[in-house]
Amino acid sequence: MSLLQNLQWRYAAKKLDAAKPVPEDKVERILEAIRLTATSSGLQPYEVIVVTNAEVREKIKPIAWNQNQITDGSHLLVFAAWDNYTVERINMMFDLTNDERGFKNEGWENYRNMLLGIYPKREAEVNYQHAARQAYIGLGTALIAAAEEQVDSTPMEGFDPNALDEILGLRARGLRSVVILPLGYREPAKDWLVSLKKVRRSVDNFISWVR
Amino acid sequence: MSLLQNLQWRYAAKKLDAAKPVPEDKVERILEAIRLTATSSGLQPYEVIVVTNAEVREKIKPIAWNQNQITDGSHLLVFAAWDNYTVERINMMFDLTNDERGFKNEGWENYRNMLLGIYPKREAEVNYQHAARQAYIGLGTALIAAAEEQVDSTPMEGFDPNALDEILGLRARGLRSVVILPLGYREPAKDWLVSLKKVRRSVDNFISWVR
Repeated sequence: MSLLQNLQWRYAAKKLDAAKPVPEDKVERILEAIRLTATSSGLQPYEVIVVTNAEVREKIKPIAWNQNQITDGSHLLVFAAWDNYTVERINMMFDLTNDERGFKNEGWENYRNMLLGIYPKREAEVNYQHAARQAYIGLGTALIAAAEEQVDSTPMEGFDPNALDEILGLRARGLRSVVILPLGYREPAKDWLVSLKKVRRSVDNFISWVR
Repeated sequence: MSLLQNLQWRYAAKKLDAAKPVPEDKVERILEAIRLTATSSGLQPYEVIVVTNAEVREKIKPIAWNQNQITDGSHLLVFAAWDNYTVERINMMFDLTNDERGFKNEGWENYRNMLLGIYPKREAEVNYQHAARQAYIGLGTALIAAAEEQVDSTPMEGFDPNALDEILGLRARGLRSVVILPLGYREPAKDWLVSLKKVRRSVDNFISWVR
């Protein structure tokens, strides 16, 4: 199917079938799409934690409004952003880039130094918020990648991020949870949303032109 | 091409060919992908302004580090988020949903009331930041949609948002610019990045599993 058909097909599934796990090769292609997509300055300032462990997902469910997709889905993706931009993290990514390309690009080095002069001096919260936005590029990518695999997903902001950070030990890794995405297969007979029309603002109400 | 191939193909083009405009039907499919993708609670709390006017793009360029893609591309997409969640805006989207579906869903009405009890009471800045994150889902979608159309694009955060809001009159419309995306066609002979390897953190460094 085309991208537009995939976007029409997907929806935030309200009931996933606990008896139908998503095959691992599909999950890996979804993760690869997230890994490949863009981030600001290419820093990839977030990580994805894939929770399949049933006990851990049972612990997460009550701190996420008891949304059943967390335990009915087979894989729970947790997008967790860097809690800050540090000199080490910025250098990590620029050094990796130089290593992989096999040379230093002068313009790119100047750009590294500019970022080093700005990001680490800002408040951690400002940096975290910036990193969290990048995770949403990944989320938008994951929704499309899942649809291309005909895998259902339910993007969720409704959870207690501090409690999730605690359950997964994220703060010790310098990460803060941003948004979560259960993957699974819709169970249409028990999903109130599945047959309802997708509603979007009209083109005229959402797009405007300066010609 | 597959999604993963499209993600490999795309990059943040550094030089666009000013002689090659993007056909309007391609731009419309890219915009449609943005319109169809997900947002939190389906509120679509942002708009996309498409700037083709050459004079306006000439005005934007100097407040965006003189990045040449702004004037060399044929279309500049400006993602502009709601400056706040208001009662009117939340009701607009829930009313539209009821109208299009032809009935009121009780659970959905309860959800509307819950949002009305929370969002309008929060600080405008908190609400704007939340809306801005949704625009990044749209950005991630646009990058994929452009790649599917073999159209190049350059996501940019490097601009003065207040100055851009002023040029486009966004504040009067209750909008604040978040991120911009010129569309065009790469000019490989003048693009230092086009032939360099795409570098991403390794799978092991970016993805972890809790099994």
